[in-house]
Amino acid sequence: MTAYQSLTAHIAEYNDLLNILNTLKWDMRTKMPAGGAATRGAQLATLTKLAKDIFVSDKTARLLDAAEAEMAGADADAYATRALQQTRDAYELQKRIPAELLGRLAALGPESEAVWASAKDADDFASFQLDINIELAEAIGYEDHPFDALIQQFEPGMTAARLKVIFGQLKAGLLPLLGRIVDKDAPLPVDLWAAEYDVDGQKALCHEMAELIGFDFERGRLDIAPHPFEISFTRNDVRITTRYDANYLPMSIFAALHEAGHGLYEQNIAPALTRSALTTDFIGQYAVGGASYGAHEFSSRMWENQIGRSREFWQLHFCRLQARFPDQLADADAELFYRAVNRVRPSLIRVEADEVTYNLHIMLRTEIEMALLEGAVTVAELPELWNAKMQEYLGLTPPDDRRGVLQDVHWSAGTFANFPCYTIGNIMSAQVLAAAHQHMPELAEQLARGEYASLLAWLTEAIYQHGRAYSTDELLRRTSVEGLSVAPLLDYLERKYSDLYQLN
Amino acid sequence: MTAYQSLTAHIAEYNDLLNILNTLKWDMRTKMPAGGAATRGAQLATLTKLAKDIFVSDKTARLLDAAEAEMAGADADAYATRALQQTRDAYELQKRIPAELLGRLAALGPESEAVWASAKDADDFASFQLDINIELAEAIGYEDHPFDALIQQFEPGMTAARLKVIFGQLKAGLLPLLGRIVDKDAPLPVDLWAAEYDVDGQKALCHEMAELIGFDFERGRLDIAPHPFEISFTRNDVRITTRYDANYLPMSIFAALHEAGHGLYEQNIAPALTRSALTTDFIGQYAVGGASYGAHEFSSRMWENQIGRSREFWQLHFCRLQARFPDQLADADAELFYRAVNRVRPSLIRVEADEVTYNLHIMLRTEIEMALLEGAVTVAELPELWNAKMQEYLGLTPPDDRRGVLQDVHWSAGTFANFPCYTIGNIMSAQVLAAAHQHMPELAEQLARGEYASLLAWLTEAIYQHGRAYSTDELLRRTSVEGLSVAPLLDYLERKYSDLYQLN
Repeated sequence: MTAYQSLTAHIAEYNDLLNILNTLKWDMRTKMPAGGAATRGAQLATLTKLAKDIFVSDKTARLLDAAEAEMAGADADAYATRALQQTRDAYELQKRIPAELLGRLAALGPESEAVWASAKDADDFASFQLDINIELAEAIGYEDHPFDALIQQFEPGMTAARLKVIFGQLKAGLLPLLGRIVDKDAPLPVDLWAAEYDVDGQKALCHEMAELIGFDFERGRLDIAPHPFEISFTRNDVRITTRYDANYLPMSIFAALHEAGHGLYEQNIAPALTRSALTTDFIGQYAVGGASYGAHEFSSRMWENQIGRSREFWQLHFCRLQARFPDQLADADAELFYRAVNRVRPSLIRVEADEVTYNLHIMLRTEIEMALLEGAVTVAELPELWNAKMQEYLGLTPPDDRRGVLQDVHWSAGTFANFPCYTIGNIMSAQVLAAAHQHMPELAEQLARGEYASLLAWLTEAIYQHGRAYSTDELLRRTSVEGLSVAPLLDYLERKYSDLYQLN
Repeated sequence: MTAYQSLTAHIAEYNDLLNILNTLKWDMRTKMPAGGAATRGAQLATLTKLAKDIFVSDKTARLLDAAEAEMAGADADAYATRALQQTRDAYELQKRIPAELLGRLAALGPESEAVWASAKDADDFASFQLDINIELAEAIGYEDHPFDALIQQFEPGMTAARLKVIFGQLKAGLLPLLGRIVDKDAPLPVDLWAAEYDVDGQKALCHEMAELIGFDFERGRLDIAPHPFEISFTRNDVRITTRYDANYLPMSIFAALHEAGHGLYEQNIAPALTRSALTTDFIGQYAVGGASYGAHEFSSRMWENQIGRSREFWQLHFCRLQARFPDQLADADAELFYRAVNRVRPSLIRVEADEVTYNLHIMLRTEIEMALLEGAVTVAELPELWNAKMQEYLGLTPPDDRRGVLQDVHWSAGTFANFPCYTIGNIMSAQVLAAAHQHMPELAEQLARGEYASLLAWLTEAIYQHGRAYSTDELLRRTSVEGLSVAPLLDYLERKYSDLYQLN
């Protein structure tokens, strides 16, 4: 056995433990009876600590040293080199973060939902975990901005400075577009959601939709979760979830398409990367194969929005909805459904936002996080800043903090610098799909015929197969795009909504 | 922290890992998509090895030594003393078994279903794992019979000599009873299973039946599995399963009652024993709270058969079946249903056997295992021996080995000395229920009214709460019964079937 093979065998076992943690988390969120929570918490804590001890052990250091000596001078782009480099970087980073700080951060997780719920009830935001994130940023280290340290956990290589430029360009395009849409908005002639859509019918439909875009149920499942998510236990077992509301059909369908979009990424990583460093999120102690959180959102948002909310998609597949719900959709047609699931309306709540306003919600949050970390604003001043930005971006003022600065669990859970990944995903999805159309002149016709296999194959070749081997920027270069750029997203939104709202 | 507390904290983490393994196994058998098998196998192997290394580590030895020094002279019956003693015994036993042998035994498990399937297809029993069990018996050590070593894994304290006596008494009672029944057997006037019973209705019914006898769904679930089983992840999360056949209603109901009976044991262990040595099967590397395999079968068989197949039970609850299946059961009544689910007929297949013939199947297998270990018979001679005993006990001769000596997976999977636990469970269930009636003169009326809570409370007090603290014999003494005795089981069967078949 070479030194690299010894390291690989060691990391494979670490990856097994992270996949086991994923299994426990999936079960906890979909199947576990309420009474099981306390002992499941103990089991998660024991295995999390054990896994961490194995990764930061002297054995890992010894194996890393030996493998580096053996592989000196190898091709920098080869999977093996990337795997070695990422293991080394993660090892050094983990070593820099004191165990005591990691312990305090980990302890926030299980409590965060309850803390957040009390904070919302009391209209109190003292639970926001700013100080511990400043500590974490100092431990990780940065050159320009503490945000640069924190976002490494989710989007390696991204910086506050670069995000500010991107956000400036994005707002310059989005705000005028939103203004033009709002002027033209009017209720649709029929309220499609007045009827009731039984959950069994919705379940069958969601399964059908996920399968339609290529989700492989031989290596996956679809279950119910109050907050839909995707999680995998290697490419061979990818679990997606959705939620059902009998009075709002789109919720289940688009959550299923979104999570299936995440699932397609995981299911199409090269088999050779199974149980390797390149399907291991060492920083998050998570077994996941996507390059970054932003890259993962690219896939989910592309399949949900650019494919799943397109006119072509519903022109073809609306008949499937009608077959399941003939009475409820008797007065509807594909065009009406298309309009109903693409209506743009500024709202107070991020998770209910449409394609045009969603990124404004994200930028608002990210700008506040940066201001907090810079010390430019205190936690006490947050409601004022939040409400001012809501007015500026969306023309709305929250009636209370529950529907304002307290609406997300993230800050109570100690998670900072995660929000921009959603917008990075949106930007990237427009860039990649535009590139796909350039590479495949026949793609538009294939999509109009409901043939998604060649798009999936192209995405697999360009992006999915590589797991975590390359950064978001490197993956974009592999689709002939030079780094993140907002123009394709703005073009896409302008085209789609000019048509929908007859803006010109 | 005292030395005993340090040991306890260490064992709690080991117990967590075994509960996690249970979770992985439950998921594998109920939810996992087919494609997930290979990587799930790797995950199980990694965690199994890790857990074993933790248990047989120098740390365990050090903590054990210190705790023993500290606790010298403590009350021998106290939970703490029992926990310490069992941990020590298991540690010494594990140390006696070479890692290499354990590895070979563990490797048999994942392959055994496939090996067994091929063996059945080829009518070939070369896969029977006799030699490795002889090796294992030698490693564990014994005084009189290699079987004594092997059965310690499942029923501590039991011996071949004692089983032979018990079996002799049991056969002396069962064989004449069976002869009298067979002479009187006749088809029932209506074939209840000719109709179709939809699976959704059966599911609701199984849920209702499990809840009826006290299974707590706040700390448990009921799912589907092709081979029903119960498994727990502490008393707070107990999973039971059943299987459904639209053309045979009793299968799902009695499997659900059986597994709920196992579940009641786990759910009613004292909370203080959670994550302790007394809910840890160190030998089997399994997180399980019952005293032994036999004691666990006592609970499942008592609830399934003595409660669930009683006339009183169906006089009360047949209306629930009729409410779910009014058309299918229009011509039936409680008495007919009671007779239908208690018909006695000698058959070739153990898992289809009734209360009277079941133990004959078990004795046949156990006698063959003992003969193999004694060298009194070779594997090649097995079909002849099997068929002779089938003729002697049940008056049948298998048309082929698939329906004979090859019908169980156990011997191909390397499991010897496990079968007698089923009969020990049957014997014990009759003894314990008889004792319960003696202690609670009002019990018969309570059961006739469908009040199962006081029986459950009495069983919890006498047996369930103690987890693995006491042996089967000790538990029996706590119900005022002097050790295993076949008379109550024979009395129960004589009474029930004399009435059903009008034997007198």
